[in-house]
Amino acid sequence: MDITRINSLSYEDFVHVLGNVVENCPVITAAVWSMRPFASLAALEAAVTDFIEALPEQGKEGILRCHPDLAGRDLRNGTLTRESLEEQAGAGLDALDAAELSHMARLNGEYKERFGFPFVICARMNDKEAILRQLSRRLAHGCAEERASAIEEVKKICRLRLRSLVLPDPPNRL
Amino acid sequence: MDITRINSLSYEDFVHVLGNVVENCPVITAAVWSMRPFASLAALEAAVTDFIEALPEQGKEGILRCHPDLAGRDLRNGTLTRESLEEQAGAGLDALDAAELSHMARLNGEYKERFGFPFVICARMNDKEAILRQLSRRLAHGCAEERASAIEEVKKICRLRLRSLVLPDPPNRL
Repeated sequence: MDITRINSLSYEDFVHVLGNVVENCPVITAAVWSMRPFASLAALEAAVTDFIEALPEQGKEGILRCHPDLAGRDLRNGTLTRESLEEQAGAGLDALDAAELSHMARLNGEYKERFGFPFVICARMNDKEAILRQLSRRLAHGCAEERASAIEEVKKICRLRLRSLVLPDPPNRL
Repeated sequence: MDITRINSLSYEDFVHVLGNVVENCPVITAAVWSMRPFASLAALEAAVTDFIEALPEQGKEGILRCHPDLAGRDLRNGTLTRESLEEQAGAGLDALDAAELSHMARLNGEYKERFGFPFVICARMNDKEAILRQLSRRLAHGCAEERASAIEEVKKICRLRLRSLVLPDPPNRL
């Protein structure tokens, strides 16, 4: 679907197609419909990420809390969203051995205890080793610093999900 | 569950229990967890409604767009949330005759065309005749006025859902 087609969608179809570009937060997609028409895919991406950035800090924490644990209960129980399952499987998180699983579970638990939200990282841009490395590293962050890091990952995930759903902008013809 | 028990919940359990007090917007519940502990049920209600009120106008429209139509496709297809089904059925919207259904569908369609979000009303406080009357009346509103009216209904729905999940505050002992 190109951006012209996206701009023509009713709010119901817009949310049906793009409702999970921010994990489990269809209200963000639904809000962004108010800003159409979008001049380009880049403008649509900016509308979503600007909306996120303008939220109060607890709103950003709310977004993070709507994300599943990596290699966690939802993956095990088959209750991940389709997008999250593809991303976690792509990074190899559906094939951890027992030691890796228990390492990941321990670090995820420490992280949630420390920050009050789950560890979020753009899994499509990382493999399981990089994810575990980042998880250890980010555990040492301060709270505000880590919230900002995590929201940057939400934006990366969102951009990649949007690019898998909307055709790229044509190159500028100057 | 009383407010002390609510305050003791992890963010995961808090969202599991209260995640649909604003229809299809678990991110709002997840955000409000940051503001615990709550002194009372009234303080929890105020935290949710203040969060909604502080959103930009497109955010409020996003919340409205996460609501199903009354007596609409989700009711017909059995895809309403449990809370919405109980509320719509309680108002008699699951037992409309053909003429009532077609009247409701026509007005819902006009309303969505005019405002870009679905008609939202606290069904627990209205029967089907009152709902149809309000729908006709509110169709004559200006856009900003109607968005504000609809958000007041979201808050009423939210308060009643919270009161069905959290035990009432004890009376003040002066």
